Amino acid sequence: MNSKKMNVGMLGYAFMGKVHSNGYRQMPRFFFPPPAVPVLKCICGRKEEKVKMAMEMLGWEEYTTDWQDLVRRDDIDIFDNSGPNNIHKEPVIAAAEAGKHILCEKPLAMNEDDARDMATAVKKAGVKAMVGFNYRRVPAIMLARKLIEDGYIGKVYHYRATYLQDWIMDPEFPLVWRLKKDSAGSGPHGDLNAHILDLSLMLVGEISKVCGMTETFIKERPVVGASGDLGSAKADGSKMAPVTVEDAAIFMAKFKNGALGTFEATRFAKGRRNFNRIEINGSKGSIVFNLERMNELQFYSEEDPKFAQGFRTINVTEGGGVHPYTDKWWPAGHIIGYEHTFTHEIYELMRAISEDTDISPNFEDGVYNNRVLDKVLESVEKKTWISI
Amino acid sequence: MNSKKMNVGMLGYAFMGKVHSNGYRQMPRFFFPPPAVPVLKCICGRKEEKVKMAMEMLGWEEYTTDWQDLVRRDDIDIFDNSGPNNIHKEPVIAAAEAGKHILCEKPLAMNEDDARDMATAVKKAGVKAMVGFNYRRVPAIMLARKLIEDGYIGKVYHYRATYLQDWIMDPEFPLVWRLKKDSAGSGPHGDLNAHILDLSLMLVGEISKVCGMTETFIKERPVVGASGDLGSAKADGSKMAPVTVEDAAIFMAKFKNGALGTFEATRFAKGRRNFNRIEINGSKGSIVFNLERMNELQFYSEEDPKFAQGFRTINVTEGGGVHPYTDKWWPAGHIIGYEHTFTHEIYELMRAISEDTDISPNFEDGVYNNRVLDKVLESVEKKTWISI
Amino acid sequence: MNSKKMNVGMLGYAFMGKVHSNGYRQMPRFFFPPPAVPVLKCICGRKEEKVKMAMEMLGWEEYTTDWQDLVRRDDIDIFDNSGPNNIHKEPVIAAAEAGKHILCEKPLAMNEDDARDMATAVKKAGVKAMVGFNYRRVPAIMLARKLIEDGYIGKVYHYRATYLQDWIMDPEFPLVWRLKKDSAGSGPHGDLNAHILDLSLMLVGEISKVCGMTETFIKERPVVGASGDLGSAKADGSKMAPVTVEDAAIFMAKFKNGALGTFEATRFAKGRRNFNRIEINGSKGSIVFNLERMNELQFYSEEDPKFAQGFRTINVTEGGGVHPYTDKWWPAGHIIGYEHTFTHEIYELMRAISEDTDISPNFEDGVYNNRVLDKVLESVEKKTWISI
Amino acid sequence: MNSKKMNVGMLGYAFMGKVHSNGYRQMPRFFFPPPAVPVLKCICGRKEEKVKMAMEMLGWEEYTTDWQDLVRRDDIDIFDNSGPNNIHKEPVIAAAEAGKHILCEKPLAMNEDDARDMATAVKKAGVKAMVGFNYRRVPAIMLARKLIEDGYIGKVYHYRATYLQDWIMDPEFPLVWRLKKDSAGSGPHGDLNAHILDLSLMLVGEISKVCGMTETFIKERPVVGASGDLGSAKADGSKMAPVTVEDAAIFMAKFKNGALGTFEATRFAKGRRNFNRIEINGSKGSIVFNLERMNELQFYSEEDPKFAQGFRTINVTEGGGVHPYTDKWWPAGHIIGYEHTFTHEIYELMRAISEDTDISPNFEDGVYNNRVLDKVLESVEKKTWISI
Repeated sequence: MNSKKMNVGMLGYAFMGKVHSNGYRQMPRFFFPPPAVPVLKCICGRKEEKVKMAMEMLGWEEYTTDWQDLVRRDDIDIFDNSGPNNIHKEPVIAAAEAGKHILCEKPLAMNEDDARDMATAVKKAGVKAMVGFNYRRVPAIMLARKLIEDGYIGKVYHYRATYLQDWIMDPEFPLVWRLKKDSAGSGPHGDLNAHILDLSLMLVGEISKVCGMTETFIKERPVVGASGDLGSAKADGSKMAPVTVEDAAIFMAKFKNGALGTFEATRFAKGRRNFNRIEINGSKGSIVFNLERMNELQFYSEEDPKFAQGFRTINVTEGGGVHPYTDKWWPAGHIIGYEHTFTHEIYELMRAISEDTDISPNFEDGVYNNRVLDKVLESVEKKTWISI
Repeated sequence: MNSKKMNVGMLGYAFMGKVHSNGYRQMPRFFFPPPAVPVLKCICGRKEEKVKMAMEMLGWEEYTTDWQDLVRRDDIDIFDNSGPNNIHKEPVIAAAEAGKHILCEKPLAMNEDDARDMATAVKKAGVKAMVGFNYRRVPAIMLARKLIEDGYIGKVYHYRATYLQDWIMDPEFPLVWRLKKDSAGSGPHGDLNAHILDLSLMLVGEISKVCGMTETFIKERPVVGASGDLGSAKADGSKMAPVTVEDAAIFMAKFKNGALGTFEATRFAKGRRNFNRIEINGSKGSIVFNLERMNELQFYSEEDPKFAQGFRTINVTEGGGVHPYTDKWWPAGHIIGYEHTFTHEIYELMRAISEDTDISPNFEDGVYNNRVLDKVLESVEKKTWISI
Repeated sequence: MNSKKMNVGMLGYAFMGKVHSNGYRQMPRFFFPPPAVPVLKCICGRKEEKVKMAMEMLGWEEYTTDWQDLVRRDDIDIFDNSGPNNIHKEPVIAAAEAGKHILCEKPLAMNEDDARDMATAVKKAGVKAMVGFNYRRVPAIMLARKLIEDGYIGKVYHYRATYLQDWIMDPEFPLVWRLKKDSAGSGPHGDLNAHILDLSLMLVGEISKVCGMTETFIKERPVVGASGDLGSAKADGSKMAPVTVEDAAIFMAKFKNGALGTFEATRFAKGRRNFNRIEINGSKGSIVFNLERMNELQFYSEEDPKFAQGFRTINVTEGGGVHPYTDKWWPAGHIIGYEHTFTHEIYELMRAISEDTDISPNFEDGVYNNRVLDKVLESVEKKTWISI
Repeated sequence: MNSKKMNVGMLGYAFMGKVHSNGYRQMPRFFFPPPAVPVLKCICGRKEEKVKMAMEMLGWEEYTTDWQDLVRRDDIDIFDNSGPNNIHKEPVIAAAEAGKHILCEKPLAMNEDDARDMATAVKKAGVKAMVGFNYRRVPAIMLARKLIEDGYIGKVYHYRATYLQDWIMDPEFPLVWRLKKDSAGSGPHGDLNAHILDLSLMLVGEISKVCGMTETFIKERPVVGASGDLGSAKADGSKMAPVTVEDAAIFMAKFKNGALGTFEATRFAKGRRNFNRIEINGSKGSIVFNLERMNELQFYSEEDPKFAQGFRTINVTEGGGVHPYTDKWWPAGHIIGYEHTFTHEIYELMRAISEDTDISPNFEDGVYNNRVLDKVLESVEKKTWISI
């Protein structure tokens, strides 16, 4: 391949590290010729044993336990922050200052102020920076966007989103980092609401005010051992400690364009593994998406003959330019999976860097996201509506 | 109501008797003003105790145990034969000869010859005669017909129908009349294949040849007590007798217009209560129907924009003339049930009588149905294709 | 039938009048022998021409235009109020004082105070009184209740209900009575939220506090002619007047048992005809119901083997006492429709009267419903949470 | 990685070549540590330009246009035949004779005799040989197998499979190699029926007799240019030639264990992109699978409480050993795609080689598959049932 090579340095080797690595490896094989060829240069994490194994397993050339070093290396072009939320800010700002392009996992920061600092840093540095809202790159979501932009939905009246999971319902499930405010910032609010909020920004627009509620159903959980990460979580049993993030977060919103929004994120919906369902109702049509069937989009159009109106299930896998990205993969009807959204994201990142074009979602989108998340929590505390 | 009254005499008081009675009672309330008002004059059955109770429960004025008398009464305008298959022929011919209009349950007869005799009799008598293929009157099926007739499906390539039930899978289920050849004629072949064959006639057209297979999975079953009907079936336990009809009947068909057909009827599909699923694929579109969701029709059209093609689920309940019959019932989205198809059927019967118009499905359709059913069984016996 | 006869007098002849009439006619045919036989004695409405036609069409013996007379007639045992919301109170109180048993459509009243007066009157009079929340009598909903009561769902964490329609989205749709505050009280809040709120009371329990938002998307509509009812609504075109009820009403709730609730009612969800969808998540299982497929209930149970867990779709049509009411109708898999829920309701009403047992939902349930509806509107106005 | 390396030589670079290459690249990243590390040594094809580009794009070290050379190279451990059906036999036999392990795409050969020769060659050579029925490696299919083997389905009565596509319905679609008997052997019969026949072998067992029908709806098509492959197919327009394979192939079957089977493969089902739907009904339960939703399996069990029986939709993505393969990928609810089945297949191949264990599906399974396919065509020709 004659494409230019770009060296990647990545912080994080758990779930997000694994899926990002896959994206870097796969992108140039399918988006061929690629805008640039990512080289999996160096992976970084705190625990040497683990990061070394990740290097080998995920296909990186080197590893380090020192992110400060990583973000300043001359041979790194792109800094990928796939680490937990509480180590987004410092490394990203340092990387920006060192002139690296950036891909940072979502939510961008622990709060709006931190996010703003990060956005300022990348702007000042003039580097490309993307926040990892990968669901923007689901072909069905991109089709939804097209339908809205092309006027098939008309004026939007309702945005209705629920992101439901059930992986911590067992009271014996231990107090992992995602359940502690100091490491995670928040619970499903920052983890899941962040996603459906970002999609609302892309699909509907900005919000004018919000009002929410949160709940922690299980107040205390067994303390986790020193290793701390989810995979090796072991309950001590002898010791319990308080859960400091919410188990569910719900809010109502009014959009600037007049639409009404409802958002719900919970980890207490038994039977829902990764049920990110979005419904949009407009004056001319409606759209329904569910991540558990991410290759499909439901679409209702009043332009259909009156006797033949109904929600159609579009298998969003048509090639020939009909559906986005899909002709890079397989023939129609041969579905893609979760990780492909990251491959698309990385393609867009490297294309924007190579062609020096705008990036989406950028850090301003990330700041907006953190801002609304914060305002929702403020509305919970103050028991009233808060303007954005 | 100023509408003319028409007196009905009905043979049979079990499942079909109950649902026909409901149709006569309900039709003039919803199809108002009705083409004629049916009067539930006299109900007939062999067992006095039971027919008397049915009279009271189902709202008939009188009862009798003598069908010979019933079909010749001067005050009867319509003879409804809701009895078992083996008592269709004689009463229907007698009624026709007495000048009664006729509604006869499906399949019309035990075989083509009998059906032909019946058709000849009604033709000679000049009476209106309908065979009770009620699924022609499901609004979603009528919409399917419209889509085909209006060219939305194009040239039909495939008709794929399975009618699946599971009510006799327990080997202890007794040897009721439906499992005996002398009373039922055949098993799911005449009971269920008859339905999907009739719909294929209406939706696709005539068949040129067939080839089938049948199987009786449970060869012997407990003998039923004297009462004989399903409701009171009690296994003796001390005595077993052979099942003389098939448990499943499958056949392939070529239609005269070149389409390929597959038909399957079984009572051994665990979990399928009344799963009558039909899929039609044509050069321009496809249709899917499932009786368990009888208010819905799935429709795929290649006329949709390329990026928005998919099977849409039409809720076939629109009023204002958009969908057939439905404005007689409730607002859109308020579904109707199984028995409504009989109410529609009875409306069509009485309309045809009142307005002296053609009837559908008529006895010729019934003869055709019996003819194909017979040919399938012949193909099973001869292990080859049989021309229709 | 030897069952006792009970004479019914009904106010209202439109949609609700039609479906109630059907219930009275059908109940004794299917719930046989019935607890009592309703006699459709007298129907009442303001417009003589119309009520006379309704009498004939719906099968009533007499008609009147004077409800004051109707509720005091000696030969009336049950007073059925199927009229608009603003004529619930006075006639119901008068009927109670005259010793009539009562079935009153939902919502019980225009507000909590009126509802309380009505409840007081029926209590004082010692008559049976039911409020017409018919969806309690959907077999799938009754199965949901059983699953919760029998512990299959465990502790309830989430109640998530949306009742979506789309019948007034056209800005040219006229200003019918349902869109005016003085006749309807409210828009989809009292019409649709009332339903899903009542189901939450039955399935989850009482609410401790609420916070809501409402919106009127179309602010003005064409004025309707003098006739006023929906069927004959004609837009003048020359004159517009303000819509005085909301087009959508959304609220969050906390239940007394700790569960979180979300409620949404809208008439602006394009493609949703009568989409009343409820999801309940508990510590052991989940339930999903959708009125457009009202014969089905989805159920997830963690008691299933780990490898076989998933939402199952139960066809709630089993006879033999397995599912409620269904053996009164047809064999398994033969679905029932919207109006059957009223037939069940009327059966329960007449059973409670005949056997002198408690009624459900009773007027206290109706008062509670109006109370919460009012509090939601108060929360909208005050922009904060309101305790119930 | 300390795992042993194994060099792969592959014939074919089109659709199957692309997806096999991906499997070799991805397997060791996710099945870590892998049983052996595949090295993408050399890719082979007729057209130098194209195979060279494929080498680069798909990540191979070398390329060649001479398969005779490839299969005899000392440094090749595994020969992968991803080429068209008519070049399966010779290269595979040569590779076997040269001691290479083999992965050959399905159907194994153009007919049973060729397949038998191939099976004999690999047996004689003592090499491992797998035929590429990748759908055996869909986690949902493996779960189906487990459910059957563990007795959840009971005695199987029905196997009902349809594999529907629609990619050649346009009469202007050109006469590509898949539509010519000399290159493809047959149409959807060998392409699609081969798949659902293989699954029936694994899930139900062997067949005793078959009877089929076939049809070619479009008799002539535009001739393709010299390049010949699908991607660059251009219709000449000036020249038409006969389609020499069937457009649809349907057959009935009786299994040795008494079950009834129906199989249908067509490329003329408008709207069905890759609709491989299988339903199995047994004495205790049922299973439904659809490739377009390949992460799901529907399962009905009579062991559920009577009131809670229904088809459940299992999201077959549970980790922790609950569902096969899935803990190698992502958390529950994060779906995988089409190509993952090949990654699983390649894992199984390399595991069997490394551990010297039996392979599934092996060449005997491939011979059986070709044998039944041949017998079906014989039954079409002879218009009768043919024993296997």
